[in-house]
Amino acid sequence: MRMKCTIAYDGHLFNGYQVQPGKRTVQSELEKALAVIHKTDGRVPVYSSGRTDSDVHAAGQVIHFDTPLSIPAEKWPFALNALLPDDIAVKTAEIADDGFHARFSAVQKEYRYFVYTEKHPDVFKRHYAYHFAYQLNVQKMREASRHLIGTHDFTSFCAVDTAVQDKVRTIYELEWTETGDGLQMRITGNGFLYNMVRIIAGTLLDTGAGKFSPDDVKAMLEAKDREAAGRTAPGHGLYLWSVCYDN
Amino acid sequence: MRMKCTIAYDGHLFNGYQVQPGKRTVQSELEKALAVIHKTDGRVPVYSSGRTDSDVHAAGQVIHFDTPLSIPAEKWPFALNALLPDDIAVKTAEIADDGFHARFSAVQKEYRYFVYTEKHPDVFKRHYAYHFAYQLNVQKMREASRHLIGTHDFTSFCAVDTAVQDKVRTIYELEWTETGDGLQMRITGNGFLYNMVRIIAGTLLDTGAGKFSPDDVKAMLEAKDREAAGRTAPGHGLYLWSVCYDN
Repeated sequence: MRMKCTIAYDGHLFNGYQVQPGKRTVQSELEKALAVIHKTDGRVPVYSSGRTDSDVHAAGQVIHFDTPLSIPAEKWPFALNALLPDDIAVKTAEIADDGFHARFSAVQKEYRYFVYTEKHPDVFKRHYAYHFAYQLNVQKMREASRHLIGTHDFTSFCAVDTAVQDKVRTIYELEWTETGDGLQMRITGNGFLYNMVRIIAGTLLDTGAGKFSPDDVKAMLEAKDREAAGRTAPGHGLYLWSVCYDN
Repeated sequence: MRMKCTIAYDGHLFNGYQVQPGKRTVQSELEKALAVIHKTDGRVPVYSSGRTDSDVHAAGQVIHFDTPLSIPAEKWPFALNALLPDDIAVKTAEIADDGFHARFSAVQKEYRYFVYTEKHPDVFKRHYAYHFAYQLNVQKMREASRHLIGTHDFTSFCAVDTAVQDKVRTIYELEWTETGDGLQMRITGNGFLYNMVRIIAGTLLDTGAGKFSPDDVKAMLEAKDREAAGRTAPGHGLYLWSVCYDN
């Protein structure tokens, strides 16, 4: 039986999502808990919608795994949460079709990036939002964002050390909302390149601070060169928010 | 010159506020940073409005210290925040009268206690709110709260191992607000006994869950016996929110 689960994790104490020998990762903690439930010394492989980097959080990551156990779907979160460390939690579980794949069946992803602009650091946000103590021109950030929405070659907004050849992606929505003490960026698309959301966030924040103009951002996109775009914003402001699948 | 500062700290990684040999405490980190600024191997004593326990947070703790340095008041937060660990932050600083004392001049304190009642744990709240997955009858909690407002002997709501003789305190406000995924308790008073806010929170939460009736809470207060009242709610849901002084 194939199980599909929505999970959340606090990225702070993990070396990212993906298994790495000798390091604490989200995937290895999930597989460890599943091995206990399956009473096996072997591995119960877990597949996610995609990896996330160190410090990056997930509010709605999706995973799948196959199991011969007949645990009712609604019991899986309790069973797993009892074994998982307290910085990973399974929120929902359901039986999926055998053809379902957390990564390859995904049709849309949403990320959010949180920034606060207060003068002094907020101890409660130090791992959960990026402290960028500048007055930001949100109008300019929204104007620049409009250049990125749609189908484009995002080579300029992709980390150089990536193996992916096709850098064309479609951004459906890219919105900035004022949160009282800062801003939230909400971005949806059919897929994202390595570091793409963080490079977009870093570039648009520096646009808000006056370093770039909206036209500069348009030119960065057209340059198709990572050197042309702005910096990569820190991981701890980023959340994988949700993953959509066709039904 | 006497400086008065408002500070915030995340209680999670501290052994409480007060200096204890060999342990990481908020006070010792503050005094360490002040010693650096004052270029002294000695101690620059810091006085707070009162100690807080392990895991308990502060959004608006108030401290004072004396300094011969002529750093302008608005520069003090930057100077201290540059030296403090990222789980303590100075929010404001001002020059106080020589007669001001963070503890003895305080006339009112506000604490807040955060609870969330969702079915599964929330990884982002694990250190910042108490997970109590019960359906709570807020009406009953408010009714019970009314018995505690006013001037009473709070012996039943005070940890047994306390040296304080006079257990009479005045609660001005005790309100429960729904937050979407749980509740927030807001309590103000002229002073609080050791563990008093956490015993009140624990007792009222168990009232909401049906363990006690509002009349039981009235009887607990009248019993003047710690054994009569409910349990002490965990520290990580509690925030010292603000301290008021006469002007």
